[in-house]
Amino acid sequence: MKEKNVEQITDMDVDFGQWFTDVVVRAELIAYSGAKGFFILRPYGYAIWENMQNILDKRFKELGHENVSMPLLIPESLLQMEKDHVDGFAPECAWVTVGGSEELEERLCIRPTSEVLFCDHWAQVVKSWRDLPLLYNQWCSVLRWEKSTRPFLRHREFLWQEGHTLHTTAEEALEETEQMLEVYAELYEDYLAMPVVKGRKTEREKFAGAERTYSVECMMHDKKALQSGTTHYFGDGFARAFNITYADKENKLSYPHQTSWGLSTRSIGGIIMTHGDNNGLSLPPRIAPIQAVIIPIATQKPGVLEKAEELNKRLKAANVRIKVDTSDRSPGWKFAEHEMKGIPLRIEIGPKDIENNQCVAARRDTGEKVSIPLNELETKVEELLEDIQKSLYNRAKENLINNTRPAKTLNEVKSIINEHGGFIEAMWCGSDACEVKMKEDAGVTSRCIPFEQKQVGDVCVVCKAPADTMVVWGVAY
Amino acid sequence: MKEKNVEQITDMDVDFGQWFTDVVVRAELIAYSGAKGFFILRPYGYAIWENMQNILDKRFKELGHENVSMPLLIPESLLQMEKDHVDGFAPECAWVTVGGSEELEERLCIRPTSEVLFCDHWAQVVKSWRDLPLLYNQWCSVLRWEKSTRPFLRHREFLWQEGHTLHTTAEEALEETEQMLEVYAELYEDYLAMPVVKGRKTEREKFAGAERTYSVECMMHDKKALQSGTTHYFGDGFARAFNITYADKENKLSYPHQTSWGLSTRSIGGIIMTHGDNNGLSLPPRIAPIQAVIIPIATQKPGVLEKAEELNKRLKAANVRIKVDTSDRSPGWKFAEHEMKGIPLRIEIGPKDIENNQCVAARRDTGEKVSIPLNELETKVEELLEDIQKSLYNRAKENLINNTRPAKTLNEVKSIINEHGGFIEAMWCGSDACEVKMKEDAGVTSRCIPFEQKQVGDVCVVCKAPADTMVVWGVAY
Repeated sequence: MKEKNVEQITDMDVDFGQWFTDVVVRAELIAYSGAKGFFILRPYGYAIWENMQNILDKRFKELGHENVSMPLLIPESLLQMEKDHVDGFAPECAWVTVGGSEELEERLCIRPTSEVLFCDHWAQVVKSWRDLPLLYNQWCSVLRWEKSTRPFLRHREFLWQEGHTLHTTAEEALEETEQMLEVYAELYEDYLAMPVVKGRKTEREKFAGAERTYSVECMMHDKKALQSGTTHYFGDGFARAFNITYADKENKLSYPHQTSWGLSTRSIGGIIMTHGDNNGLSLPPRIAPIQAVIIPIATQKPGVLEKAEELNKRLKAANVRIKVDTSDRSPGWKFAEHEMKGIPLRIEIGPKDIENNQCVAARRDTGEKVSIPLNELETKVEELLEDIQKSLYNRAKENLINNTRPAKTLNEVKSIINEHGGFIEAMWCGSDACEVKMKEDAGVTSRCIPFEQKQVGDVCVVCKAPADTMVVWGVAY
Repeated sequence: MKEKNVEQITDMDVDFGQWFTDVVVRAELIAYSGAKGFFILRPYGYAIWENMQNILDKRFKELGHENVSMPLLIPESLLQMEKDHVDGFAPECAWVTVGGSEELEERLCIRPTSEVLFCDHWAQVVKSWRDLPLLYNQWCSVLRWEKSTRPFLRHREFLWQEGHTLHTTAEEALEETEQMLEVYAELYEDYLAMPVVKGRKTEREKFAGAERTYSVECMMHDKKALQSGTTHYFGDGFARAFNITYADKENKLSYPHQTSWGLSTRSIGGIIMTHGDNNGLSLPPRIAPIQAVIIPIATQKPGVLEKAEELNKRLKAANVRIKVDTSDRSPGWKFAEHEMKGIPLRIEIGPKDIENNQCVAARRDTGEKVSIPLNELETKVEELLEDIQKSLYNRAKENLINNTRPAKTLNEVKSIINEHGGFIEAMWCGSDACEVKMKEDAGVTSRCIPFEQKQVGDVCVVCKAPADTMVVWGVAY
């Protein structure tokens, strides 16, 4: 009965990268565009992003943030005002040099990120301690001229949100940086069913211009790491560079302290690589645009379409994101198609089911089928969706735990990476040289210095100097 | 008691343009940015846009539309595929010529509108009648290299939504074009309290590449016209240029029919110029980010702040967008500030009010003050907000009716425009020459051919040839 479409996608164990691209295209998340490295987010892909936006935007606003819109273009002179920042971003800027028919006197860069735009604005409007804190966010796209690109993971243009805040004290700014990391962690764990490792980035891995960068790191199905969201503490470095000052309560001019934080559509790549399988995408119910699809069986039989529509209405009324597929395709085609699209639950209803006053629900995550008495439809569907959400999280958590290993020597690191991949917990002395050596010898980079420290040794895994900092290392996307 | 801040803005009867700019800046809707012609939407301005987005996005989705995200950049060769379209837009494109450190082989234009991107995508994905209709929308910014710019009315970059749809038949596409114009009209009339004239654009005024353009036209307080939203019917012109074909039910290759429609932040300029006065902005309650502000009076007196907070909670629970201003400014400063920001209702609560178990509500639109018994707080506030919404609409409707005049001769047109301004209803033979002459001799352009036709004569106002089409003419922003 089931005409599998899955021969159209590559086996994930044969070629994970190709499997990923196949899923992205076949599930109609993304299409390629005429400009290299630029991707189209199709309705189904964009709907996932909209769900994420709704969750985050609500949370941002609860925490007092306001949305704004900054210009797309940055004059070159403005970009150059903070030295580390321009060194980090100038090499990957796209430049507008012609406007209308005239050559521009100063070229304009399409924003790769908007710190300098916020700073330039704040230098104009911030006057007094009364104006602080400023808690801003914007939803927009940014552009980075990457050499090699991949759907969701590395676009030349990608959608994101960037929060930018300004505070009177360093403490308050640091708290904001940590608070927003927690908001990201909640999005991943509670909605995307992706367990995270939270921590601080090393000096080498931090954001251009930041004093501190924090990140949430996730482990993909292939055991590689995905940096999934970052928050930055800038101290007063940008404020000094842009001359942002305010009169404090004693009427003394002071420099405010600043943060920024961002999360992008890269997260959708993370969902795919965490939960997907050889039948395609598999979406956690809380983020799925369609949580359940109803497939009427033997639609020519009297009463079937009507009953399907009745279930559709009942579940819609129960706030399930539901759809009924009445297209002229065969049930087998529909099964494969909706599996490919990762719809968490499939509900089949045919003449026999109607006779028995039941329907059949098939879980996308396990393939398991259960009969549901129609008088318990709403509660059973809600229970199943909750259970799928939990199971996906637990499976991902197992993958993270089972593939995180301590190492005491560089040789151990190498053999773990070669044999298993995954994350490695190892002590680090704090020197840049040892971090570089880990990269050169074992091919791993520091993912973060986790907040939850473990004592996996007492000397640096590279140089053997005394060390009390545990770092999580891995191979990253 | 009231320390007026209004001396800071220009009198609208002295210099309407300067008054507008003053309001935009003083009400903190917009700030100027470092790049000429690019504006910053500050939190208060952006919040109005967000409210509009929510209203429209919900309506679009109810009507079956899906959101997508298309790339920011268009390769020059792609832009050139539809001749009228490129002629219309190429002169105001901004061009990216450098990416990273390399000169690009083909320059890329920042989208001035996205028709060609949608067409290029659809040429790849549309195969069968089963794929149609495609009802897409995107929320984004577009860029047009305008020579002179003004906040909200003419930006080099502006935020908008652009709908793009593809249909099997011309009839269905035309229906879509008319339906979406109706959606825009509803937004203006029901939420922004702005009456509209709905109609079709003349050949001269239609969109580059369209077969038909419809628009909603509003009259501002200074009696000039604001084109406030447009919808376009393309026939199959773009489909042929981009070779978009589908197999119909008889398996014959056919060209689909296309529409697009857009509404931008320009609408916020319309709100300001329709409802504002010499005290600043005045917002219709249904679109106001803050519908009512509570000002505690004599905050040092025991119980005042607590009572203000209690009212705040009650109104929040009644779904009023409410805020209490407990800042250390004087009540007079607060009154002027919240008037400037156009908050529809101010609620004052002081010790005497508490004694009398009442509060005082002041309407932004009329300045009228009424006492409200605290046990009727929620219903009275809701009634007042509804009444303000209606009054603002009625006042704007009166302005439109009182300043729309019929004319039978070109001399009459000239004298009406010189003496009164406003809209002129006059018959038109349909020739481009007569339309040009109206512009050259009387300085008016055709705003639209209204759906609601009136017989204001039977010959063309210019050439005296027989004419059965009434056009609304005016001076436009």
